[in-house]
Amino acid sequence: MIAYRRPVRFEDVDAAQIVFFGRYMSYAHEAMEHFFSSLVGGYAGMIMDRRVGVPTVKLEARYLAPLRYGDVVRIEVTTLRLGNRSAVLRYRFIREQDEVLVAELDHTFVTSDLHALRSCEMPADVREALLAHLEAPPASTM
Amino acid sequence: MIAYRRPVRFEDVDAAQIVFFGRYMSYAHEAMEHFFSSLVGGYAGMIMDRRVGVPTVKLEARYLAPLRYGDVVRIEVTTLRLGNRSAVLRYRFIREQDEVLVAELDHTFVTSDLHALRSCEMPADVREALLAHLEAPPASTM
Amino acid sequence: MIAYRRPVRFEDVDAAQIVFFGRYMSYAHEAMEHFFSSLVGGYAGMIMDRRVGVPTVKLEARYLAPLRYGDVVRIEVTTLRLGNRSAVLRYRFIREQDEVLVAELDHTFVTSDLHALRSCEMPADVREALLAHLEAPPASTM
Amino acid sequence: MIAYRRPVRFEDVDAAQIVFFGRYMSYAHEAMEHFFSSLVGGYAGMIMDRRVGVPTVKLEARYLAPLRYGDVVRIEVTTLRLGNRSAVLRYRFIREQDEVLVAELDHTFVTSDLHALRSCEMPADVREALLAHLEAPPASTM
Repeated sequence: MIAYRRPVRFEDVDAAQIVFFGRYMSYAHEAMEHFFSSLVGGYAGMIMDRRVGVPTVKLEARYLAPLRYGDVVRIEVTTLRLGNRSAVLRYRFIREQDEVLVAELDHTFVTSDLHALRSCEMPADVREALLAHLEAPPASTM
Repeated sequence: MIAYRRPVRFEDVDAAQIVFFGRYMSYAHEAMEHFFSSLVGGYAGMIMDRRVGVPTVKLEARYLAPLRYGDVVRIEVTTLRLGNRSAVLRYRFIREQDEVLVAELDHTFVTSDLHALRSCEMPADVREALLAHLEAPPASTM
Repeated sequence: MIAYRRPVRFEDVDAAQIVFFGRYMSYAHEAMEHFFSSLVGGYAGMIMDRRVGVPTVKLEARYLAPLRYGDVVRIEVTTLRLGNRSAVLRYRFIREQDEVLVAELDHTFVTSDLHALRSCEMPADVREALLAHLEAPPASTM
Repeated sequence: MIAYRRPVRFEDVDAAQIVFFGRYMSYAHEAMEHFFSSLVGGYAGMIMDRRVGVPTVKLEARYLAPLRYGDVVRIEVTTLRLGNRSAVLRYRFIREQDEVLVAELDHTFVTSDLHALRSCEMPADVREALLAHLEAPPASTM
């Protein structure tokens, strides 16, 4: 598991005074950039230099409690599933002041050649980073 | 069904030159504001004057094709399910130049009292707006 | 003068419940995309197909009154100055319900070759669009 | 001077593949939140608990070089001028990999009572924070 902390910013709050549901995807993307920071050149290098992207094909989000301005959120990222050309990352959003799980997001992406905009084999270092944080299978499945 | 058209804006595109997956939630929210424009005072009046909100509890999104700068997207909104205090809106994102379905989003929200931040009975006019665009049940279920 | 209308959106408001000062630049950019919609291919075509950009070199903004969620803003765009490779657009932000001028923005950009990232001669159709909305010089200067 | 570092994020880049000029205001606001982190309750507490805001009345920005995805920007914040109810913060945006000054922003705000939306005397701790980072007058003026 890799954890990424960030404060809720002034602009992140909407007219209902809570963090807008779409903003969690931006937070998740920041956490993913952090998740892949072990790659040479980081996530930015993967996109910009190697032209390998990870377009999202599916998202499932559950929202359990609100985030407000002044809160700090800790996002814990694990690999839920790992395929040949795709993976599912799970993001658990935890409000730090009371350790409440405020949201959970499962994010499926496909490794893609950004020139051809076609799926491609997952690069070895990307696979390695995902493998290092693969969730243990639940005991009941053994 | 209510349709909402909007161009992909200059800022909406990310470093991979396609619309970021979280941006679709902003587009969906704009479409929802449009969906509820029949309410007296509109969506803004519901939030700001009546202090009734619709916090999201669940999202499911499927992404099928990319959106790029210069594209125009048409978002078709229907009510998929309607409960006492909750509803599911379905947003179908269609790229206008080739009528390709680029994404589909199911969005579950709960009507809530923004003072108490607690769920509340759905106001009658909100229910009416949702009912007017309820998807017909598939023939096979009749 | 070209006018562009848009509602203040749910997400546009910040934790102080007014539109964040940086958001006016997004509004201005939308108005600029509208301003250049007379070009063949529009603003998007200029950037994406012709690879001509208009990087900003200077901004001056004055904020006179707040915008809130539920307001509609009308942005009136004129050309304040026109040079060989640069221009100044003026954006006047007017709150429609009471016709109050809430902000004024002067925006200087340079036409640039996005391949070389170097300034370039202003394309003829861009100049024409700017010339069509050039502010009359004040009478006192004649 | 207080420095704030942040990477250019994936979403921060626009269709011309450089950071959009309005995004610098978001970066500046983050730097300001950091600048005021010495206040009890921080910037968030000032806005949310004490209901003291700092609405912007004037902005002047000069853009000298682009920021791209993968860059890290360091924002150096100083107090340029300090009045009874207003102040000017200067933000210098420096691209870390080559220490190039990419932009400079002068930001004038007025301390305000967010209940009454009226200017108010600057709270003592806000003044103190600003005073601690006041730019020395240039020697030539002594």
